[in-house]
Formats: sequence, C-alpha cells, structure tokens
Amino acid sequence: MKYRALVLLVCFAAWCSLSGASPGAEARYEIRFPDVPGYQTLRCDFHMHTVFSDGQVWPTVRVMEAWREGLDAIAITDHIEYRPHKDDLPAKLGRSTELAKDLAGAHGLMLLNAAEITRETPPGHFNALFLSDVSALDTKEFLDAVKQANAQKAFVFWNHQGWQGEEKGKWLDVHEQMFQNKMFQGMEVCNGDEYYPTAHKWCLEKNLTMLGDSDIHEPDLRRQSTSQDHRTMNLVFVKERTLSALQESLLERRTVVWYKDQLIGREEWLKPLFDQCVHVAPPHLRNEKYTYVRISNSGAADIRLTRTGNAGPAQLELPAGSTIMVRLDVPAATPSVELQYTATNLLIAPSVGLPVVLRVGASP
Amino acid sequence: MKYRALVLLVCFAAWCSLSGASPGAEARYEIRFPDVPGYQTLRCDFHMHTVFSDGQVWPTVRVMEAWREGLDAIAITDHIEYRPHKDDLPAKLGRSTELAKDLAGAHGLMLLNAAEITRETPPGHFNALFLSDVSALDTKEFLDAVKQANAQKAFVFWNHQGWQGEEKGKWLDVHEQMFQNKMFQGMEVCNGDEYYPTAHKWCLEKNLTMLGDSDIHEPDLRRQSTSQDHRTMNLVFVKERTLSALQESLLERRTVVWYKDQLIGREEWLKPLFDQCVHVAPPHLRNEKYTYVRISNSGAADIRLTRTGNAGPAQLELPAGSTIMVRLDVPAATPSVELQYTATNLLIAPSVGLPVVLRVGASP
Amino acid sequence: MKYRALVLLVCFAAWCSLSGASPGAEARYEIRFPDVPGYQTLRCDFHMHTVFSDGQVWPTVRVMEAWREGLDAIAITDHIEYRPHKDDLPAKLGRSTELAKDLAGAHGLMLLNAAEITRETPPGHFNALFLSDVSALDTKEFLDAVKQANAQKAFVFWNHQGWQGEEKGKWLDVHEQMFQNKMFQGMEVCNGDEYYPTAHKWCLEKNLTMLGDSDIHEPDLRRQSTSQDHRTMNLVFVKERTLSALQESLLERRTVVWYKDQLIGREEWLKPLFDQCVHVAPPHLRNEKYTYVRISNSGAADIRLTRTGNAGPAQLELPAGSTIMVRLDVPAATPSVELQYTATNLLIAPSVGLPVVLRVGASP
Amino acid sequence: MKYRALVLLVCFAAWCSLSGASPGAEARYEIRFPDVPGYQTLRCDFHMHTVFSDGQVWPTVRVMEAWREGLDAIAITDHIEYRPHKDDLPAKLGRSTELAKDLAGAHGLMLLNAAEITRETPPGHFNALFLSDVSALDTKEFLDAVKQANAQKAFVFWNHQGWQGEEKGKWLDVHEQMFQNKMFQGMEVCNGDEYYPTAHKWCLEKNLTMLGDSDIHEPDLRRQSTSQDHRTMNLVFVKERTLSALQESLLERRTVVWYKDQLIGREEWLKPLFDQCVHVAPPHLRNEKYTYVRISNSGAADIRLTRTGNAGPAQLELPAGSTIMVRLDVPAATPSVELQYTATNLLIAPSVGLPVVLRVGASP
Repeated sequence: MKYRALVLLVCFAAWCSLSGASPGAEARYEIRFPDVPGYQTLRCDFHMHTVFSDGQVWPTVRVMEAWREGLDAIAITDHIEYRPHKDDLPAKLGRSTELAKDLAGAHGLMLLNAAEITRETPPGHFNALFLSDVSALDTKEFLDAVKQANAQKAFVFWNHQGWQGEEKGKWLDVHEQMFQNKMFQGMEVCNGDEYYPTAHKWCLEKNLTMLGDSDIHEPDLRRQSTSQDHRTMNLVFVKERTLSALQESLLERRTVVWYKDQLIGREEWLKPLFDQCVHVAPPHLRNEKYTYVRISNSGAADIRLTRTGNAGPAQLELPAGSTIMVRLDVPAATPSVELQYTATNLLIAPSVGLPVVLRVGASP
Repeated sequence: MKYRALVLLVCFAAWCSLSGASPGAEARYEIRFPDVPGYQTLRCDFHMHTVFSDGQVWPTVRVMEAWREGLDAIAITDHIEYRPHKDDLPAKLGRSTELAKDLAGAHGLMLLNAAEITRETPPGHFNALFLSDVSALDTKEFLDAVKQANAQKAFVFWNHQGWQGEEKGKWLDVHEQMFQNKMFQGMEVCNGDEYYPTAHKWCLEKNLTMLGDSDIHEPDLRRQSTSQDHRTMNLVFVKERTLSALQESLLERRTVVWYKDQLIGREEWLKPLFDQCVHVAPPHLRNEKYTYVRISNSGAADIRLTRTGNAGPAQLELPAGSTIMVRLDVPAATPSVELQYTATNLLIAPSVGLPVVLRVGASP
Repeated sequence: MKYRALVLLVCFAAWCSLSGASPGAEARYEIRFPDVPGYQTLRCDFHMHTVFSDGQVWPTVRVMEAWREGLDAIAITDHIEYRPHKDDLPAKLGRSTELAKDLAGAHGLMLLNAAEITRETPPGHFNALFLSDVSALDTKEFLDAVKQANAQKAFVFWNHQGWQGEEKGKWLDVHEQMFQNKMFQGMEVCNGDEYYPTAHKWCLEKNLTMLGDSDIHEPDLRRQSTSQDHRTMNLVFVKERTLSALQESLLERRTVVWYKDQLIGREEWLKPLFDQCVHVAPPHLRNEKYTYVRISNSGAADIRLTRTGNAGPAQLELPAGSTIMVRLDVPAATPSVELQYTATNLLIAPSVGLPVVLRVGASP
Repeated sequence: MKYRALVLLVCFAAWCSLSGASPGAEARYEIRFPDVPGYQTLRCDFHMHTVFSDGQVWPTVRVMEAWREGLDAIAITDHIEYRPHKDDLPAKLGRSTELAKDLAGAHGLMLLNAAEITRETPPGHFNALFLSDVSALDTKEFLDAVKQANAQKAFVFWNHQGWQGEEKGKWLDVHEQMFQNKMFQGMEVCNGDEYYPTAHKWCLEKNLTMLGDSDIHEPDLRRQSTSQDHRTMNLVFVKERTLSALQESLLERRTVVWYKDQLIGREEWLKPLFDQCVHVAPPHLRNEKYTYVRISNSGAADIRLTRTGNAGPAQLELPAGSTIMVRLDVPAATPSVELQYTATNLLIAPSVGLPVVLRVGASP
C-alpha cells in the first residue's frame, strides 16, 4: 500500500517541479536590455550557493529564481573547501549543478558547471566556470586548484576583491604571479551589495574581464527584476546563445555589470548599449521658439544624464521603460541639433560617466 | 516691485507646466498593446470631467494623467447642463478643453473637442466627440442637443447605459427613434468600475461601436497603467495617428475595451490583438516523451486560457509581459501540434470567450 | 593555512546566521491582530517542509520566513515516509527541527517538534505536533504511526482533507474509527490556496479543532504579511506564551484560521476578535440631520460588512489598519444607535458570516 | 424636466462628496507616530495650493488627500497676489478654504484659515495661519500685508528660505527688521523636496519655530503615507485637539519636521518622540556568552543608529513598524546594560544626530 502511495507522490512531485504548465506556474519577466549590433545580450549570474556549500536552498531553487527574474545563464558556484552542511550532505563535489540540470534544461536556461575555490584571504576566493570536473580542484595547495581549473580551460575570476577590509584586497605577489601566468581572466567589480573601485581600475589597466554577481546564499525574494530592485548581474554580449559562445564573450571582455542603479563596463560596450536603449523621436511639435521631443529609454535600467554641451536641460532622467518629453530652446527654423550629455550612472571608469550625444532631427 | 515679481512667477509657472524637461518631469509609461496588421493601436479615454463641470481637477491635470498612464488620445467631456462650480467658474462651455490644448500639444497627445449631454435618465447621458462648437449643444430640448452634435458631424455615444438601476437602462422609444435616425453611433459597454452586459449585447445586435471609458471626476492616483490597475479605456485601431483617422475608426467600430481584467470587443479585432500579443517560441527541448515550449504575452493585459481541444494543460495563465514554460505530452517525433483554447477573459459577447489556437512548431 | 581560513569562515557564517544585529538584518513585521479578553493571540503555521523531505529550503530558512512575516510559532512537518532527497540527505528523522532550533530560540520563536504522517489517500495525511520522538512514527502500518503519536501525547490533525479530488476526502470507516478512539483532534479547514467546506462543517459537527496552514515547500517570497498577501495561518488564543499553553489552546479549539481574505472559526472566537479589531469612535460631528463617525479596523485583515438592520450604509468596507468615515441619517437629538451588520468574510460556518453590532454613542 | 434632473444630480453629487459611507469610500491610513508625555502628536501640513491660486485641484481634493494620508490638520495657503487662473476664477480671497470647510468637518480634520503672502524674493514668501480675514492682506506694500496678519494674531512663517538660489536666501535688513518686531515666528526648514540647513541653523539661533510643508500644487498621488513615500510635514505636540491649542504649540515651537528619511527638530521634542517609538523588550534568551533582545520601532519613520559607546552592534537599522533581533556580547551574569548610540537621521542641528540610550534590562 505504502509503495503505491509513494509512486503516486513521486510522479506528482516530478510533475510539479518540471511542468510549469499549470495555473500558478511561475511566470518569467524578461529583463529588457536590448541586443547590440552584432551580438545578443545575455543576462548572467556567475556566483551563487546552495545547501551543498553554505547556501540555504536546494539547487532547483536557483533555477526558478533565475527563470522568474529573467536571467539567461547561471553558474552554481558552491565552495569546494567550505561545506558547513557536509555531515548532513556528504555528496560529491558538483552535485548541486547535477541536481539543477534537468530543471534548467526544461526552462531553456544555460547552466554552467562551476565552483568557488575558497582558500585564505589573500589570495582570496576565485570562481571557475565551464569546468568539466569539479572534484579535481579539491587540491592541497591553492595554486594547484587554479591550475586544475586552467587545465580544464575554465574561465577563472577573482571574487569580491575588496571584501574583508582594505588590507585583504591588495594586488600581491601571488596575484601578480597568477596574472603573469594567465591563471585568471577576470575580476568581480561588484559582488552583491558591494562595488570595488580598485578592481574596476585593475580590470581596465590589466585588460581583465569585469564581472558582477549576486553571490546569493539565502533564497532570493524578488518576484522579478526591476531597475529599483534587481540582483547584481552581468550583461554578456554573445555571438550566439551557446555555452561556447558565452565563454568566448567572457574571454573577449564583452561584459557590462548591472549593479544597483549603475551600469559598469568598457566604453566600447556601454556605448552601443546606450544607443540601443535611448531613442529620440522626431519632434512632434515645433514653433518659432521651441522644439518638443519625446525621448524614451527601452532598457531595464534608469539612465541619468547631465548636460555637457550648450543645448538641452541641465539634467535629464530617463526611467527604465519610460518616455519623457523635453522642450528645447530650438526654433523650428533650425533643422537639427545635437545634445551633448554625460550618462552619469553608466561608468566607463571609477567615477567617470559615459559621454553621449542625443540627436534631435527634423520633424517627421 | 510687485509687477516684476509677477512676471518672474508667471514665467516660472509656465516653464513648470509646459517643459517636462527637468529631473522629476513626469515619465510616461507606455501601455504595451501591439499594433495589429494594417492598423496602429491607440489607447483612448473619451469620458472625463474637470472643475468646469463636477470634476475635481484643473484640465491640465487630465493631460498629465493621460501622459504618465500611456494614453494617446483623450476627450474632456464636461457636462453641458450640470456645472455645480458655476458660481465660481462662470466660463463659457468648452473652456476646459481650451485650457488643456497647449499642454496636450506639447506632449504629443490627441485632445478631442467634446462634451457630455446630461439630461434626464432616461433617455440618459450622451457624449459627443469631435465637436466644433460645444455651446451650440446647450439647447432647451434633449433631442435638439443631439441634433446639434449630429450637425457638427460629432461621434455620439450613449454613456453608462446600466447606471441608476435596471429600470433606467431600457431601450425606449426615444432610443429607438435616435437609433433609426442614426443620431448616435456607439454605447459605453463599460464605464469606470461598471460593465453593462445589455449594452454589450445591443452593440452586437445593432452594430454600434463598443466603448469603455473612465468617467473620472477625482484626480487619478495611478502612476502608470498596469494589468492589475488601469483605467477603463478603449483600444482603437487607426490607419494613421490623426483625429480624422481616429473618428473614422470609431465609425467603423474598430475598438476593444480594456476593462479590469477583461478585453471586450468584436471577434474581428480581439483575434488579431491576441495573435499579436501571444507568441509561442519554437520548442527549446524535446525528447521521446515531452516537448517544452515557452509562450509569451507581450501585451499589457493578462490572458487566461482554458483548453477546448485535446492537447496542452487544462488551464494556462499568461500574465502581461511575461513568459511561461509549458511541458506538452508530445514526443519529439511529432513535428508540430495545434493547441485549442478559449481566451476566457477576451469577450466576444457577454460571457463568451475568444476561441484561439496556439501553434507549436518544430524546433529551431 | 587552509585550517585557519575555515575557522574564520565558520565563525563568520555562524555570526551571519545567528546575530541579526547588523544593518540589513531581517526586520520582523508584526501581524497586527489584537489579543482577546483573557488570551494572547499567537500567529502560527503548523505545516511546512524543508529539504529533509520534499521541500526546497534548509530548515533555518523556515525560521527567518516566520520571523519576518510576524509569526509566533511554527512546526516543521517533514514527511516521515516521503523523502525524495534521501540519497543526498540520509539524516535521521527529526533532523530538520533540530537544525532550526537555535535560530528559532535566538529570535524568540516557538518551534514545535512535529512531522507529517504521509500514507495512502485515504486515509490521507496527518500532522502530529509536540512530538518527543519522530522516529517512533516510522511504522509499517498507518494506524500504528498515529498510535505512536497518541502515545507521545501529540496533537494530531487531518491535513488537506479535500485534496486529490472529491472521492479522496470522504469520512470513511478508518476516519470514524480514529475519531471514536480520539486518535486525532483537528482538521485543516484550509491548506495553502485551498479551502475545504466539508472539513469546515465536520469540525463544527464533531467538535474538532479548525486549522489552516501554509504547507509550504518552496521558499516563501513574502517580505511581510499583509491582508492582500499572507500565508494561510492560525490565530491561536493562549493563556500564556508557552508550548504547553499552546497545546492546551489547540485541544480546547481556540483557533481562527486566516485564509486569503477570510477569517474562519468558531463564533465564540471570531466575536471577541472582531470586537477587539473594530472601533467606533464617538461622533466627531452631529447636526439636525446627520451623525458623522469614524470607524477603524486595527486588525491585520480587511473586514467587509453588509447591513442587516435599518440604520447605516448598505455596505461597509474596513481595510486592515484603516479608518473610514460614515455619515449616518441620525439627527443629533438621537443619543445613540446600534447598527446591525453581518461580517461577510468572517465565517462561523460555510457561507455564514458573523453577525455584529456597531454601537454609535454620544459625542465626546 | 431638466430642473428635476439637476436636483437629482446635485443631491447625488453632494452625497458622493460628503458621505464616505459607501464601499470604495476612501480609507484613511494613520501615520503611526506616538503621542509624547503630556501632549498629543498631530500630523500637519501648513502649505498647499488649489486652483484658486496656481494649484491644479479643487479645494476638496486637498481634504481627501489629507484624510487618506493620515493628516490631522491642514492649511490651504493660496497665493494672495499670484492667481494665474483669475480670469476663470474671479472669486474673493479665502474662497478655497471656504469650499473645503464642510468636507473637512465631516471627516473631523482641522482646517486652518490661511494664505501665502507672495511678493518679491527677497524678502521672500510668508505663510500666515489662523487668519480671520484673508482679504485684509491684499495690501500694496509687503510689510503692510504682514502687519495685517500680525494684527489678526496670525502665526507667520518664512517659506522655502533657500529657494531660487543662494543669493535669495539671505538674512537681510528686512528680515532683521521683521524679526526684531516679532512679525514672524517660524521658518520652513523643509519645503517639498528641499531642506535648508541655513534656515535650520537660524531657527535654533533665533528661537524660531521649525516647519516643514509639502507646498503641493499638483494632485498628491499617494494613497497613504509610508516611511519611504510621504509628504514633507510637521509633527506638532498639542495639549488638546483644538485650533487654539495648535496655535499655542506652534508659538511654543513644539514641532518636529518629517522630511524624506529624516526627522528634524529640537532635541527636547525629538528625544521623547524617539523614546516613545523605540522599545527594547526584556531579553528573550541569555546564556553564558550572549544576550538576545528584540528592539522595535513603533513609529512611522525608519530610524538609523550608530554606536557611540562600547556595547552593541556598530550600526542598527530600525525600519518603521518593525522589530529587529540583536545579539549582544553580554553574558547572562550581567544584569543590565546601556547601549549608547546616535540616531543619525534624527537631526537636532544641521548634520547633528540625536544621542540616545537603549536600556537592556533583566529577563522577564
């Protein structure tokens, strides 16, 4: 009797966790960042934990969070060395990703095989993405673990560099040695609620990939991603929607970090992202004194502009997904005008905003 | 001294009310209903009041509400006969629209010259849109007011037919006379919080245009329109974005009413609207038992589906702007499948949902 | 080196999970139901799951959810027989409650030792609260498991009686036998999103305790409990804030279930709860025609009233935590008046609302 | 016929605007600041506009906004000299308050007769509260207007002192003359979105009453007041709920300004307000190392604390209406402890937070 009940229950549970077909199935809300010329824009979080290290949720929860919040790719990066629930969960390394794989596949999410190398600080913690065998990284010496990741052609990056105080985030001999030997390719410029200007600077100076991740341990309570409330994440510009294309993009540094109310990245990627987000409509009204235009921001992030040229209002705020109306002191006789601004919350370097131009053309 | 101050103040106030250029300028949030083949979709509210009749706000407030809530066209329809603030506001009829005109123009909103003929119930209240001279409607006899509107080639419709109890919403001789003489062209199927199934039925039987409006008197507290909280409004399918094209669309009955969680209209317009909103992606995963697809709803209204055919889940909920994942009991060997459903909250007649088909194709 | 790092990390993690002292520590939002004369009101959820059965979260998550949502007491009721993660989590029965105990204690939450007996349906699933040894319930025969719970003086109740279709929720011989032998003391009238009128009726007829629980498996995304969005829970009226007093209250049937927008319970408990929530202030204005009063609802649930007497508006809505103003057709000369209403969403039986009286007194 | 209809309509409209009795009547949400010893706490906004000057709403709208947002007293302060709608609204001065009076009375709100003296800047704009005759202030010379207000024993305060640039907010001869002659008694330290540290300093130095108001012109879209989103307002500590007691409180400077996430006022009033808001419960758990306590904030404003003493966490955040749990490094053997903090967002002077003590006592 008991057996039949269990069969029924197992089927029921499997249906619940995989179908997503019923009323009440979780809806996904896309994060509306546009693609840029030549590339698709993927929303990615490469740092998170489950009960298999010091996280608080079963791996499948990470998949459903990513789904409803509009992510395209995630990496579960449970600590290799730090596993406080190990007595209860004696599973082999890599088990968390294994448990999440089917649900991710059913929802069409990319799930990277990954782990966090968690030793002393310094040298600090490093994530390795696109691993083939997590267990191989469970070495005695720190550098051997990184070498194992390198041997698996993993993408390796230095996590939360400024964490645990100023003295801990220094570029030491070990980092220089790793850098010279190309043992890591990127750094987290942002992690959860923190931004590291030093890491930001180093990424520019040393040509490393900028990353920003949630590093979430608890359940994520967000029902969707909004400009006011979203996890720290990466926009990655890929040639196609495959794991290998994603890895190529990371190696080529085609990332922008979405952190709180800021977008942080290289000018070469922030520029086309801005241009795809912000649209100046042809003026809908012109007279002998004024030109009236609508400016819209189709992206998921609010954009704030400060005038650097002569024309236009001193400040412009473009909330995500909205349109504003701007009245310009430009008479109808002037055929077109360029408005010079700095996008103050799109950072191309620490405290340096992206210079942009808004082109107001002739009436339609 | 005083004079100079006033000049300064007047300039300042004018700038405030017209510019919309400063930080804090009100952002507009589009109502994301797609266009349909051959037509643009306009979001319109043809019934609202200001302090010039029994409303509570200055006419410019109606413009800014429409702007931030994503409307394209509005009509201020102050009562001709009922003006409780008249002692304080002895202005001539039509003054409210006059005061709103510049601000509407600056924001690129269409503002129709209009009024509400407000006599006994029965015959009830009627709105007249596209008027050239509101004052001409201030006649002694009700039918004369309607005739004046007809003479101005206004679009006339019967408001809130079911208001004030069952006995008041009857199709009486006066209505039949007006109908026979083509003195009105449409009816409000919905008004504010109310839906009138009788009016809905009559619009279908007598080939009248279906309308739904806010009839708002107080300030509208909404900061934007959402599927959960939006004013009652019309989607009008126009050949181009002009007043005359809008009038032609109303005369041709190309409307859908968005009322609470329902879309109400003729099947010939709900069908293409549904088809433009709902998209079934190519399956992202198929195996010997199942096919997994993503279905998205890019429109502003939630859509609820009940299965009428053999394949697919019994119920599907497609929240506005979201994507759901559906697992179908369709093996990879089956090239494609059609899912038969009824969209239960898209009403083609009282209590009758729109029949729809979801086509699940081959993998990409 | 590695060892020191781990010590550091363990300390850090322990601090994170236990302190709650830092900025960002989770805030608790009380559920504002008042006490009733002679009793404290506790907010309790007696049915939930973790990774140790088929839930998706570590047990500590259940504690933090309860904390921030304003609960006073919870029971983690992992299935004894159904443990789909058992291969990864081979822990002994009762481990989930053990892991949550310290965190619950640190936050001052009551945590009951409990389990769900999960056999065939019928007879269905039963929860046992206040257990001393969960393992003893892992018997071959269903009735033996219940007997073990009875032997431990547990409070036993029948879960989600109407679940899995009408044919499954019948009162069968096995239930009659259990009832005659006092093997269970209560029934879930509500479970998650479901309400069971049959269970409601049986509780009244057979003098069983009414219960309503979340039965949550996934993470709870609520940041706090509101009248619009809260888990299904029990209000239990206790003599003091102890486990034994809580058990006494359950045995004495002093419960009200808060389910969606309804409060469901015995009239003897709904009545004082209503009286403590709703307050009619002395009239603030009276004249020869009217009396103006403010009526407030200090409870956490919206209350809807329909007039059954002669005086007062036909309908009154009292949103949770709000005050409304009511104008009565009562002249100043009338010293006081009683308004007869039914609280339509406070159910004393299936579809039967609580009769209430609002007393409007003299001016202050 | 027409006449009867109008009678009906007038009655209907009167009922709508005055009754508040129907479902959908606007609910009031109290702003939960506690009373302080010896005084009731009133929530007041003494600066707002209607269509009768340059505002956008009918006066009754200001009453309903105040009602639903939980205010106790308001003053409609239409400009005497600046009336851009005057051609349409040729009403006498003071008409706006007159039109709002009945609705305010029906809801039990205090409505002050008031106006804004709006001349050159400098000397700037001044509000006069508790006027008996607004028209008398329509003088040729600025000082004569203030003298008229003084003659009516009005409470006069200087509005938005820092408005229109640094050069405009100076303490000039005219201000010194007015101050010496006691022609005004207070200053706005905050107005809408702006805070004026200079005004704050002057109020302390010159013993003037600190005020903070909305100065709202548009409709207020707030449905209730929250710590995250509320109008700038005054908490006034009164001996009783009467206009004369309110005036006495203003003259005696018993005010605290609630501005964004700050409370600004004299230490003698911020201190008891803090003490009534923040409650440290007896420890619920103590052991040989730690003491666990719950700290709650029953007020409507979030409070942020920074440690200045030796014990307790470095930072504490107490969200409005919430409870936090704090673990102290205090063993059970220590009977009680005092935690020294500064409430950094309760300003007793520009950039100076309120020093506070949290007393953790023995277990219950």
